[in-house]
Amino acid sequence: MKKGNAKKVGVGLIGCGTVGSAVVEFIFSQRDEIRKRDGVDIELKKIYTRTPSGLKSKHIFELYPHLFTSKCSDVIFDEDIDIIIETVGGIDFAYSLARKALRARKHLVTANKAMLAYHGESLFRLAAQNNIGIGFEASVAGAIPIIRVLSDSLIGGQVISICGILNGTSNFILTKMAQEKLSYDKVLKQAKELGFAEQDPSEDVNGQDARNKIVVLAQLAFGFNLDPKDIYTEGITNIITEDFEYAEEKLNSTIKLIAFCDKEGSMYVCPMLIPKNSFLASVNNEFNGINVLGYNFQELGFTGLGAGGKATASSIVADIINIAINKNKPHETVFHVNKKVQDFNDLIFQHTLRFVVKDQVGIIRDIACVLAEHNISINAVKQNDYGIQRKDALPFLITLNSAREGDVQKAVAKINEFEFLVKPAMVFRSFV
Amino acid sequence: MKKGNAKKVGVGLIGCGTVGSAVVEFIFSQRDEIRKRDGVDIELKKIYTRTPSGLKSKHIFELYPHLFTSKCSDVIFDEDIDIIIETVGGIDFAYSLARKALRARKHLVTANKAMLAYHGESLFRLAAQNNIGIGFEASVAGAIPIIRVLSDSLIGGQVISICGILNGTSNFILTKMAQEKLSYDKVLKQAKELGFAEQDPSEDVNGQDARNKIVVLAQLAFGFNLDPKDIYTEGITNIITEDFEYAEEKLNSTIKLIAFCDKEGSMYVCPMLIPKNSFLASVNNEFNGINVLGYNFQELGFTGLGAGGKATASSIVADIINIAINKNKPHETVFHVNKKVQDFNDLIFQHTLRFVVKDQVGIIRDIACVLAEHNISINAVKQNDYGIQRKDALPFLITLNSAREGDVQKAVAKINEFEFLVKPAMVFRSFV
Repeated sequence: MKKGNAKKVGVGLIGCGTVGSAVVEFIFSQRDEIRKRDGVDIELKKIYTRTPSGLKSKHIFELYPHLFTSKCSDVIFDEDIDIIIETVGGIDFAYSLARKALRARKHLVTANKAMLAYHGESLFRLAAQNNIGIGFEASVAGAIPIIRVLSDSLIGGQVISICGILNGTSNFILTKMAQEKLSYDKVLKQAKELGFAEQDPSEDVNGQDARNKIVVLAQLAFGFNLDPKDIYTEGITNIITEDFEYAEEKLNSTIKLIAFCDKEGSMYVCPMLIPKNSFLASVNNEFNGINVLGYNFQELGFTGLGAGGKATASSIVADIINIAINKNKPHETVFHVNKKVQDFNDLIFQHTLRFVVKDQVGIIRDIACVLAEHNISINAVKQNDYGIQRKDALPFLITLNSAREGDVQKAVAKINEFEFLVKPAMVFRSFV
Repeated sequence: MKKGNAKKVGVGLIGCGTVGSAVVEFIFSQRDEIRKRDGVDIELKKIYTRTPSGLKSKHIFELYPHLFTSKCSDVIFDEDIDIIIETVGGIDFAYSLARKALRARKHLVTANKAMLAYHGESLFRLAAQNNIGIGFEASVAGAIPIIRVLSDSLIGGQVISICGILNGTSNFILTKMAQEKLSYDKVLKQAKELGFAEQDPSEDVNGQDARNKIVVLAQLAFGFNLDPKDIYTEGITNIITEDFEYAEEKLNSTIKLIAFCDKEGSMYVCPMLIPKNSFLASVNNEFNGINVLGYNFQELGFTGLGAGGKATASSIVADIINIAINKNKPHETVFHVNKKVQDFNDLIFQHTLRFVVKDQVGIIRDIACVLAEHNISINAVKQNDYGIQRKDALPFLITLNSAREGDVQKAVAKINEFEFLVKPAMVFRSFV
């Protein structure tokens, strides 16, 4: 139906690493099919990368050396280029070239959640002023089309909250710890070997990557303009193997790194206890998962690969097509409300405290006294039978009734002073 | 950002039952929010229904009597109406008015999967000829935006297969049978009382509704034009409570009514054994779930409410908005390939046969002989300990190694002649 009248679009690529090179391969291998099926003829005009002969771009450079240029401005100011794909990552350089591209009236397609989290408001405003589009499907949850769903399907301000597993690396680590009962360090080593973790995985395991992604979703769903640094962000590095035993055997739950936001401005990233039979508990390994609550549609769940060159490239090329046929003007739906993130200390959770102690008489009494002083009510004390060999480092749980976060943190700070603790207490939260 | 320049769109509604009246409520309650957020001002101009004072439309009629008309053509030929919403259901009347609407150059928004399954090709062709759009997000899987995702996100012919739980009524029944170990009849009665099953639920429980929906998805994903009647369609009415005990305890699986299609033209609807830890096994109660496999993105999962007025209305209004701002021309992506459905007998599954027998010596021998004659290899024989009281109606399982469907059906037909069988054998399939 589309033959003969496909719309031509010229694209330029800046950055040719894992994602960039996958985009090139995608465009060249699927160009005919896309022309036929989607009515768009994508012509890749120029590629800029600092090191064309580098590990990820080498095979592309060998096949198409004429596409490469050594000057970024060659791509941005090329008259035949309508859309710039930015896959360099990082914040400052990407932000500077995104602004240049938008000012040159080029549509922008980006996978850069950090840039959008910090500078989304200014970029979307600039795009709106120039009447051009920013495609950012690839910035959150890889292949899951959550950006398009929030823009085009969940219309009329219906969304109440978004709750996601948004970082594939940390989900891979938690899944392996749960399934194979291995330590964090062993699993991280394995993840690096399998390519599911970067050599420096700190942004993934400390929650920052998930935080940037939930900020992008909150911009889109609620129009919030906020400072990512105001968001309580806790990673997975303090979780121990026994936490999964307790979660599964005593609480019928599993542990996931959850990024949450709602229309009231409650936002946080932290490990949470998730009921085993729930949708998010079924999201395992390097997959991402997102649960959206709203009026009318009530509850939607999405799962898919959160990262990887091919999955991300698929979202990037979808953005190119939708911009080309004028379906994509996401800046139209992103209107910004200056929003203060709710104080994390004021939120209510059901908390579970995990302690590792040198076993001795009076531990429960001491902890219970501190909790009572802070007006916090104990629900249960749970302890697996580890036998005599764990007397020097015995893990056990205290589950609390619903409490204010700030009160629990104060109590835990005081409990952490007890010399019977082998390491600081770990606080797990569940939704009330 | 959108204030003042919202695009006005006039809509007319034909049919005012559960879905139609929910659409009216949605438009009136969300109109301001949609104008502000999505830039579209939806004006409901006219409503046609046979019985304005009927149960579902009565409260709408009392509030807005001036909107109602007693002539369908008043809606179709109103010059102020740009988009017709069809919620009458059924095939012939709906098809006739859909054609009239398209010929009158009105965009059409419909939730009618049966009409699209049987007449999609002719309607999409008519729409393309008149350069107008058909919105059909609400026709499959209620609130799950699977139509938009297939149209706009999974570009370039990447989809390999679609596997879905597409009927909420039957999924509710199977979930309750699994969780509460109740009989089909008891659960169906409960489902009717709770409003999760129609008074005549036959299209839901015999698989026809799911079949119509998978046809719509195959039209969109693969461009297939095919006869729904060619698709092997089996419902859930022969499933017994013990099947869930066996599935869970012996096969680590659960039973779901699965609708499947792939790009090779393999298509069917039948109850299948699904591994317990898989995404589709986590889709319970009245929810729908869809698993899409493809190149690049690899695997995506979607879950949400499959029916209900509000959830369906949410998809219908999203279609109205996307048509209004010209984002939605789904007929462009639906190009039709006359396709013959693959013969179900030629497909390969891993089969599990469940028998209910009068216990006596030689049953396994007799069944094993027939299977061997048909060149079918037994994997295992599994039997729960039901004690002496079930000797007259003892259920047990035989799991087979991968086999051709046609061979298994021939063998089962022969086995069904044995007089020790209390009821015909039930065949469960798993993906190989």
